[in-house]
Amino acid sequence: MKSAVSSLLSSKNSAFSRSFLQHSSKPISQTTFLISNIPQNTRNLYNQSYPKLQIRPISTESSLSVTPDKERNIKNAQKAIEEAAQKGAQLVLLPEIWNSPYSNDSFPVYAEDIDAGGDASPSTAMLSEVASHLKITIVGGSIPECCGDKLYNTCCVFGSDGTLKAKHRKIHLFDVDIPGKITFMESKTLTAGETPTVVDTDVGRIGIGICYDIRFTELAMIYAARGAHLICYPGAFNMTTGPLHWELSQRARAMDNQLYVATCSPARDPRAGYVAWGHSTLVGPFGEVLATTEHEEDILIAEIDYSILEQRRASLPFTKQRRGDLYKLVDIQRLNSH
Amino acid sequence: MKSAVSSLLSSKNSAFSRSFLQHSSKPISQTTFLISNIPQNTRNLYNQSYPKLQIRPISTESSLSVTPDKERNIKNAQKAIEEAAQKGAQLVLLPEIWNSPYSNDSFPVYAEDIDAGGDASPSTAMLSEVASHLKITIVGGSIPECCGDKLYNTCCVFGSDGTLKAKHRKIHLFDVDIPGKITFMESKTLTAGETPTVVDTDVGRIGIGICYDIRFTELAMIYAARGAHLICYPGAFNMTTGPLHWELSQRARAMDNQLYVATCSPARDPRAGYVAWGHSTLVGPFGEVLATTEHEEDILIAEIDYSILEQRRASLPFTKQRRGDLYKLVDIQRLNSH
Repeated sequence: MKSAVSSLLSSKNSAFSRSFLQHSSKPISQTTFLISNIPQNTRNLYNQSYPKLQIRPISTESSLSVTPDKERNIKNAQKAIEEAAQKGAQLVLLPEIWNSPYSNDSFPVYAEDIDAGGDASPSTAMLSEVASHLKITIVGGSIPECCGDKLYNTCCVFGSDGTLKAKHRKIHLFDVDIPGKITFMESKTLTAGETPTVVDTDVGRIGIGICYDIRFTELAMIYAARGAHLICYPGAFNMTTGPLHWELSQRARAMDNQLYVATCSPARDPRAGYVAWGHSTLVGPFGEVLATTEHEEDILIAEIDYSILEQRRASLPFTKQRRGDLYKLVDIQRLNSH
Repeated sequence: MKSAVSSLLSSKNSAFSRSFLQHSSKPISQTTFLISNIPQNTRNLYNQSYPKLQIRPISTESSLSVTPDKERNIKNAQKAIEEAAQKGAQLVLLPEIWNSPYSNDSFPVYAEDIDAGGDASPSTAMLSEVASHLKITIVGGSIPECCGDKLYNTCCVFGSDGTLKAKHRKIHLFDVDIPGKITFMESKTLTAGETPTVVDTDVGRIGIGICYDIRFTELAMIYAARGAHLICYPGAFNMTTGPLHWELSQRARAMDNQLYVATCSPARDPRAGYVAWGHSTLVGPFGEVLATTEHEEDILIAEIDYSILEQRRASLPFTKQRRGDLYKLVDIQRLNSH
């Protein structure tokens, strides 16, 4: 998937090339930049510096021996977050279902009662503690959540004081059937979430989607309309849909909505029942791949400059140019709240 | 732009690879196939064979000497259409503004009164005659149209009996300003069209967009909801937006809406005031590039199999999975017509 980046870099557009090259996939120094040109209604959020984004793919273990593996997954995630923060990350993104194998059999076994917290949710307790201790924002990938008699695929966002700022339950369940390739029915065990999620953090207004949520361009459009600067999609595309659509989806959402898109996948484990594609990626508001990993376990550190959003939107003023007399996307929840 | 294709082909998904490989960019034999699995409400349209699509990039002349050049452009287009039909094309797509240089100075000079027809519109008169003579459908790229005191960027679709079946006036005018790269303001001379265009032809239900129209995902979504199998975008992206977004936009619209997307660009003329990117392309309903040209004048012939649409939509049933309780795209014209 490196080829798309190379192709863009080889273009004659030297200004763009420079801009791309500033975003090396290698860890960069902890320079901070003042934020400017942030939309008025959210300017107060960004009065210090712009965030470093850290994308962390970690192995999804295929073993079904529950307690030991989950503990190891939690320790592994904690170690990675600490390493990223030590390298300057102010925002850390984890992959989809990082504390459990990805299977309908595993979801109920590994599920945690996030609302109960404490011992009932060791995975999110760790995230809260680490966020608070390191003073960073964590978009905590997702874990299976149990709530009453229901199971969800849930992403928790922790602020830099360790508080749970948002909880996104996957809205679009992964029910697909590509004959001879991939068949998976999340709806066999999971219940779909009921609300889109946009959260204001120290490091920007962030929309959250989980994996299959990225398929639905309407969700990204709603987030953009609600002022998101960045959409984080923890996801675990597979060996069929991954090469076909993982990068294309991210680039499309970023280009069409002129915002940053960050994805984080579990690392690939060929022995697992569900083999993840990998390739965690950060995409800029022109749809350009700024940084990406291969499929192994890795820590990806990249910088996000929100001031670029305004430049891109000034160059291609889609928002002003939409034909509201011909089509209109209705954000039903927002409409009902007014 | 070949890299994306290579990247897809190198995947392990042999069934997909085979499907891609069937669509060679070289002219293929005139085999016809019975159509199956077409949505019920449009099945009657496809009772014979599926179309070959011919994409024809032709040079946009940079000379401003009006009459001689336009005549040459018209003759050049006619020759290309005849050659394509001779090779079996049932549908021919021409590029944006193929009878005139692409500039605000040229639009009023080259504009034709399409509604008056005959001598007042030699470009469309040729298209009508050729369509009727060759018994093919022509999506006639676009030409500057004059109507009263207004100018439009207009695409005419001619049926295989030579009748004008639809006229699409570019809805989203190309007003962009990427400093140091590209600045163009179509709205200086042109008026935007007022209606989306979907047209039933012998070779499928086709949505029409012109160039910048592709930027607006809502238009493609409306077309998909209205049952389009294929969206044709005559377009002339430039040397800045071309490498960044031309292929990405096409693949995104096709993937998200699970339909075919065909684009046709003028060939690149480095001496022209506005240098087109080229790269006319056919994209399949998984967002896969099926056939593409480089930037030179070329005839691209590829096959479209509408039965694949149903397969793709069964595998990834986005339409059923959309969350109508959370978001809804309103097709305002359609709503008002009910």
